[in-house]
Amino acid sequence: MLRPWNLLLKKRVNIDLDGPRYLQIAHGLIHEIERGRLLPGEYLPSSRDLAETLKVNRKTIVTAYEELIAQGWLASVGTRGTRVSTSLPEGDATNAPHLSAKSTGVSAETEYPFLPAPDRLLAIPAGKWRKLDEGVADGRLFPADLLARAYRKAAEGASRANALHYRDPRGSPRLRQEIASMLRRQRGLMVGAENICITRGSQMGVFLTARILIRPGDAVLVERLTYEPAVAAFRACGAKIVTVGLDEDGVDVADVERACRKHRVRAIFVTPHHQFPTTVSMRPERRLRLLELARQFAFAIIEDDYDHEFHFGAQPLLPMASYAPARVIYAGSMSKLLVPALRIGYIAAAPKVVDALAYQISLIDGMGNTVTEEAAAELLESGEVRRHVRKTAQIYARRRDAFARNLDSEMHRLIDYRLPDGGLAFWLQFKDMAALDRLEQRAPEIGLSFASSQSYAAEEGTERGLRIGFASLTEEEAKEVLQALRRCAEP
Amino acid sequence: MLRPWNLLLKKRVNIDLDGPRYLQIAHGLIHEIERGRLLPGEYLPSSRDLAETLKVNRKTIVTAYEELIAQGWLASVGTRGTRVSTSLPEGDATNAPHLSAKSTGVSAETEYPFLPAPDRLLAIPAGKWRKLDEGVADGRLFPADLLARAYRKAAEGASRANALHYRDPRGSPRLRQEIASMLRRQRGLMVGAENICITRGSQMGVFLTARILIRPGDAVLVERLTYEPAVAAFRACGAKIVTVGLDEDGVDVADVERACRKHRVRAIFVTPHHQFPTTVSMRPERRLRLLELARQFAFAIIEDDYDHEFHFGAQPLLPMASYAPARVIYAGSMSKLLVPALRIGYIAAAPKVVDALAYQISLIDGMGNTVTEEAAAELLESGEVRRHVRKTAQIYARRRDAFARNLDSEMHRLIDYRLPDGGLAFWLQFKDMAALDRLEQRAPEIGLSFASSQSYAAEEGTERGLRIGFASLTEEEAKEVLQALRRCAEP
Repeated sequence: MLRPWNLLLKKRVNIDLDGPRYLQIAHGLIHEIERGRLLPGEYLPSSRDLAETLKVNRKTIVTAYEELIAQGWLASVGTRGTRVSTSLPEGDATNAPHLSAKSTGVSAETEYPFLPAPDRLLAIPAGKWRKLDEGVADGRLFPADLLARAYRKAAEGASRANALHYRDPRGSPRLRQEIASMLRRQRGLMVGAENICITRGSQMGVFLTARILIRPGDAVLVERLTYEPAVAAFRACGAKIVTVGLDEDGVDVADVERACRKHRVRAIFVTPHHQFPTTVSMRPERRLRLLELARQFAFAIIEDDYDHEFHFGAQPLLPMASYAPARVIYAGSMSKLLVPALRIGYIAAAPKVVDALAYQISLIDGMGNTVTEEAAAELLESGEVRRHVRKTAQIYARRRDAFARNLDSEMHRLIDYRLPDGGLAFWLQFKDMAALDRLEQRAPEIGLSFASSQSYAAEEGTERGLRIGFASLTEEEAKEVLQALRRCAEP
Repeated sequence: MLRPWNLLLKKRVNIDLDGPRYLQIAHGLIHEIERGRLLPGEYLPSSRDLAETLKVNRKTIVTAYEELIAQGWLASVGTRGTRVSTSLPEGDATNAPHLSAKSTGVSAETEYPFLPAPDRLLAIPAGKWRKLDEGVADGRLFPADLLARAYRKAAEGASRANALHYRDPRGSPRLRQEIASMLRRQRGLMVGAENICITRGSQMGVFLTARILIRPGDAVLVERLTYEPAVAAFRACGAKIVTVGLDEDGVDVADVERACRKHRVRAIFVTPHHQFPTTVSMRPERRLRLLELARQFAFAIIEDDYDHEFHFGAQPLLPMASYAPARVIYAGSMSKLLVPALRIGYIAAAPKVVDALAYQISLIDGMGNTVTEEAAAELLESGEVRRHVRKTAQIYARRRDAFARNLDSEMHRLIDYRLPDGGLAFWLQFKDMAALDRLEQRAPEIGLSFASSQSYAAEEGTERGLRIGFASLTEEEAKEVLQALRRCAEP
């Protein structure tokens, strides 16, 4: 009775499975049948023999056999014993799945040949020493206990209200109300809760907007230096990307007009407040002209106002959505305000747009996380968000100035830059591309990572630069980082 | 100097804006310029006159003008005063945005003509009296303080570790490890963390899988009664949907083979453990034959194991992913386990598949919510999840039996049903379709909502039934609901 598969089985049933021993043995037998090492009609050892081989109680084997007979894998043949069910198809051992060297992992080899080689992830790779961002808030400044308390309150409240249930894909009614009120009072948008759709971060807002706007053959305009994940989202939704010019006053509107005469333009993606990545503000005349063109050629303006809160010089310009509410699809985020990992973004737009977005959400992820949305509503309603923004704006203003001083002392021979009026990042223009090449080549060697200078260029041949966030670095950290960048860039 | 626009302006600057008065006035002026009611080159009233009209301090008007000059909206013309910048294009009042009757809302009219009428949302509408689900856990049973404590710990921990930052689109390393370990130990899947991708609910897992698998012209097989949001996700990603048969033993494998000979089949969507919506388990011989066909015709099996935890009779069958790890893309969810609103799902698959999913995530929403993912990892690691499942499984077993008794007493004349071995729902087959029609027509009138019997049919002419979740209803609630259903269905 001791046949080779007994040894295999012995090995197999020792895999790391919880639960009663009889189930482990039953699972082991199923694996053997599936692999074709136990064939339909083949008799199994008697329960006594197998119990001896596996050093378990005979009752354990009997229970395992009974379970498998009930499930249809085995059949009892009266006094002749137990055999593999003859109604099963014959397995083929050559088709057995390959396990990776690590033995717990599923290997990819030979399977899914139709999957393309994965694209480069749209995320900054980890750095062993330090990962620089493109301008996000310093999560360390947000009091952990405030966040924890808001989450606690939200979790308890949601549970009490029996609200932990599937619901409106547009998001928590309370959070939509709070965001509409914030946009009305602080940014001049004429919106109510019916104009708001909650998303998981602003990227999702852009992706959803691309899904509802773009039909095959449609063009989307982007500035020649822009935000790569947005471009990738438009492309992924079938858009033809058309690049337009950009200078210190913002997007080149003459270029926009030319593009509209040549292509079926469905939308333009802009960041008028602080252009991504160059940080320039779009001047009023450009804004108004862009709106005129949008009306003339019937395209949508996707206004990503990703860091409205932080403006250090004059008061921020009003978002374009505040004076052209029915023409602009406005994307915002609470990530920059509080902590990136909160993953709360929103779209403000006409109800018709919000409805179309809601359908896409019901396709893609059903709805957002109630507890997180309620916690965010709690933080907005209690005024903690505004207090935190006011407090950190001062800290970030100091960090901006310190970063500029360090740029002056460490990198003045290598780069040009403009002090940003607002936002949380600097745009560094290299005087000599060879220095930038050296820098990008050597930085990984010292464990320093950041978004590639290539990532901002929407087309071949566009000038390259680096966008470095200053807000998440203390003055000391900034100095270290800039010294390291200099050393990498020097010949 | 008191011209008509002054009156408009007066009205405008009283909108519900926070911030200093001078900013409200500046915003009001921008709105007037954009609407074409203040034209380029037009002179503004003197600060003294406007201050008088608006009943504010003159200094306030001076500051507003200065702000707008700095931003480029206005220009100072020496002693002649202040005028609208001549570099601005002329606005056109006929293009002014329409505001909805509610005055704070953005209207949809005349804009976005290219948006299609929104599809019906893939969510059960709210019911004024009660909303029945298709089989979800009772969120009320999960101790609110456990959830709150896990969230609190996660929020504090994440903040301490400065982890509230953009990171791996595949999800929290700790949660991926915990889920891999659970799948290894409780479901016999040979997986490590590298095989796991965290998603926002299982729907997102299906959507992402559709995104990576489907090329134009590809067919996806679904059973003739199936899960509508999955079908919608496949369609939205360009798949041709091909329907195959289904009986008490699961999917009709002969039908699958026929479909493979006729179409370029890229994937089949199945729920082998408890078929959605009919609750039947797929028999072993069907499972093995389906795997053979998947190998022969090189298609992927998308196994949605949406409620593995709850099985009341025998032990649950192993997921197909446990014996064919490199052929099956396994979708699971923690929503059924704990609370639906947690929005944590996962895919277990070959690393190559996980990498492709990660790229889609970086396009769609960047990453998940760190705090929620850490809270879920905490609950898994501490054993709270297993304790909760064990405790609630007993409650749900009692609720199932009570539901069946109430079905027998209230609806035996109207329907047939089979006691489900597992899962959290009953599938009700109506003896007379006219009764079902009456029921569906009248239920909304009494404020009772549930998923439409049409929603399960993947093609015209398929039999209809109702899938009613029993787990989220106490015995008393179930009795009330079934009595109401009966009254609606009776002539």
